[in-house]
Amino acid sequence: MIEGLRRLLPSSRVSTAAADLEVWGRDWTRSYAVNPSAVVFPETVDEVVAITRLANAEGGSLVPSGGRTGLSGGAVASHGEVVVSFDRMNRILGFDPADRTVRCQPGVVTAALHDFAEEHGLAYPVDFSSSGSSQIGGNVATNAGGIRVIRYGMTRDWIAGLTVVTGTGELLTLNQGLVKNATGYDLRHLFIGSEGTLGFIVEADVLLADPPSPSRVMVIGLERFADILEVLTRFQRSVTLSAFEFFSELALAKVVAHRDLARPLATPTAFYALLEFPAGDEQEALAAFEDTVGEGWVNDGVMSQSDAQARSLWALREGITESIAQQTPYKNDLAVRISDVPAFLDDVDRYVAQHYPDFEICWFGHIGDGNLHLNILKPAELPIDQFHERCHAISPGLFELVQARGGSISAEHGVGLLKRDFLSYSRTAAEIDIMRAVKRALDPNGVMNPGKLFA
Amino acid sequence: MIEGLRRLLPSSRVSTAAADLEVWGRDWTRSYAVNPSAVVFPETVDEVVAITRLANAEGGSLVPSGGRTGLSGGAVASHGEVVVSFDRMNRILGFDPADRTVRCQPGVVTAALHDFAEEHGLAYPVDFSSSGSSQIGGNVATNAGGIRVIRYGMTRDWIAGLTVVTGTGELLTLNQGLVKNATGYDLRHLFIGSEGTLGFIVEADVLLADPPSPSRVMVIGLERFADILEVLTRFQRSVTLSAFEFFSELALAKVVAHRDLARPLATPTAFYALLEFPAGDEQEALAAFEDTVGEGWVNDGVMSQSDAQARSLWALREGITESIAQQTPYKNDLAVRISDVPAFLDDVDRYVAQHYPDFEICWFGHIGDGNLHLNILKPAELPIDQFHERCHAISPGLFELVQARGGSISAEHGVGLLKRDFLSYSRTAAEIDIMRAVKRALDPNGVMNPGKLFA
Repeated sequence: MIEGLRRLLPSSRVSTAAADLEVWGRDWTRSYAVNPSAVVFPETVDEVVAITRLANAEGGSLVPSGGRTGLSGGAVASHGEVVVSFDRMNRILGFDPADRTVRCQPGVVTAALHDFAEEHGLAYPVDFSSSGSSQIGGNVATNAGGIRVIRYGMTRDWIAGLTVVTGTGELLTLNQGLVKNATGYDLRHLFIGSEGTLGFIVEADVLLADPPSPSRVMVIGLERFADILEVLTRFQRSVTLSAFEFFSELALAKVVAHRDLARPLATPTAFYALLEFPAGDEQEALAAFEDTVGEGWVNDGVMSQSDAQARSLWALREGITESIAQQTPYKNDLAVRISDVPAFLDDVDRYVAQHYPDFEICWFGHIGDGNLHLNILKPAELPIDQFHERCHAISPGLFELVQARGGSISAEHGVGLLKRDFLSYSRTAAEIDIMRAVKRALDPNGVMNPGKLFA
Repeated sequence: MIEGLRRLLPSSRVSTAAADLEVWGRDWTRSYAVNPSAVVFPETVDEVVAITRLANAEGGSLVPSGGRTGLSGGAVASHGEVVVSFDRMNRILGFDPADRTVRCQPGVVTAALHDFAEEHGLAYPVDFSSSGSSQIGGNVATNAGGIRVIRYGMTRDWIAGLTVVTGTGELLTLNQGLVKNATGYDLRHLFIGSEGTLGFIVEADVLLADPPSPSRVMVIGLERFADILEVLTRFQRSVTLSAFEFFSELALAKVVAHRDLARPLATPTAFYALLEFPAGDEQEALAAFEDTVGEGWVNDGVMSQSDAQARSLWALREGITESIAQQTPYKNDLAVRISDVPAFLDDVDRYVAQHYPDFEICWFGHIGDGNLHLNILKPAELPIDQFHERCHAISPGLFELVQARGGSISAEHGVGLLKRDFLSYSRTAAEIDIMRAVKRALDPNGVMNPGKLFA
């Protein structure tokens, strides 16, 4: 395989150097062996086709690699695979103001697309904490979500066309940037969220949105999590929310201590919600706030008076991950229907408290999307290996709680290696059989990202 | 098969009466033989499963049937199939204000869902002229679009979950109304737009939107169609458009004569655009209008001063289909990228004028979606059979023009029987092979809607 790759690409773009394998052979996970046989850097679609055909001819296997910010091991190469990095296919190929689409190579960094859109008076509204490193191809492969899904949806909602190379090396141009196209099965949507198991995304037509209007941020405190949905629907009646996030008192305490920030409210409450809505709608938001206080759902609140204050309120939410990093949290990215969120959080709290009374739970997440980030923190005295072992033992019981509510064991991080053995908690055997049949149709030789999604 | 059906269902819900077969055996098309062997009216999901398993066991074939408003023969039963009508599965099963989703049986009529949403202070924003008869199941199966796609997207964008019965009679609950779910291939999106060829849609979780704010309508006149995209982008810079429709002078002349309406502008122009935007943004819209006049793109315009006037301006666009019905138009529902619309319209005009100089062409469509409805009118003296024959001869050349621009031969009506033999103009052989493999995975015995989409 490596000899064949050296025939296809100049030597500078085929590396077997240990340092390169270590960098490009993994994502942000740290619990898997990193052992690719090579990393290659194609510059053209034709090169990607040739690499894929070579792997089919020689029995090789390929791992697509974007910004390597994944949290589920989807881009880890543990078994001598060839990593195909899109770092050299990072150009924006075209923009049309009438179509409002940008044609991107897969290696375009998300933040670069944000900047490009802004320069053209528009916006690419999908955003998340890793957007400075993540690449569009990876975003599409995992259907990335993030912090403004309640208003703008997922990556899926912004993809007007995809050019892909299937597992057999077939080049497909899917949907070509059309708004309306009723000519059979929409294979574009099959590739979105496929985690590199069906083929490579080699170009994407990405839609842009109107630029966001200036916004205001409010942080409110609640004692009972059960009230949070009433609060959400009350605000939704009055303002268009672009975010409705939540975090627990423990999460707030961590971030306030870590960054030495001021607390948003004078008196701590058990839970907090962060709301974002358009500037100009302050009166409507305040009226909704007063109603929620009057109902006894909300204790107190603060509204940003400037962009700087809005940023510092957002920092309370966005700084949580970093503030708990040294406690090596066991992270789970779960989703249920929005209406099930309070009961589900209760289920999980009770389950963990009962079986693991010595563990601290740090909750935060996107209420407006039914997406909860569960972080179980390592007690300082517990060795990391024992902590991991005990956390792994938590998973089946936790996923049973997800399954009981028809929820998702991976809301936005993907299945990859991390959730592979638990897929049946979110998808039935019949669905997995169909998924395998789809995989066989597009990648009959199992060249693409083997062992990810399913074994 | 019929005997088996009579064992599964009470006799009142299995009909072989000629009058029933004639009604439920077809959609709005009139050019296909209507010859089902029976029509059945299941009332439960279990009955749909049992019917499907029976068809597999006995080698039968099934045609799903909704509101029968299709325009491509997707719900026509010509070869002794059993029609499965969802007329008796027409209840709304639940609504949750936090999820903002309505669980619908497939036979819920689109307009009934509009009403239900409005009663709950929300909106189901997908709308089109057949919404008084079309059913949700059929909308999902064809990914219905309509008149406000520029603002609200297609049916696909409003489906949070689907329960389906596959061609083998397997019941799948897909995505369960989750906002975020990154657990492998999204089979829900395979069923959306599958035209009943993979299985039955037996329940849908439909998202609702904020109620629309009051709107204003503007009709403007242009001499050169080539300028229409400049006009679109100029308006988009200033207002959020919920519609950007167009129609030709011939289309306007037809509708004005048919309904005895007043012309919107004092002086006729070659083309007209109808814009809809939020009330309150009149100044911004007028400024954009003045710019487009200053550039020489637009000749004249009129803006609604009341809801009644807005409705009469909309009538100019919505009355076209009815006004040309007696000329039995040869209809094509085509899409290209928005930026390609002017050049494509020019291509088609030239092609038809050159080969069929005796035919009138009536154009209208959704510029904001790149979707053009081409209506070729039958000259009064030409017998209908000869007209159809000459129109069929037009199709290959027309579809070559679509293909040259990577467009769609069916923007929103679907492939069904009408476009089946032309599918390769919009999808490559490799894509069609993959679609067939997907079909085999979900309907290995070819029970579901045989002969539709592909032969």
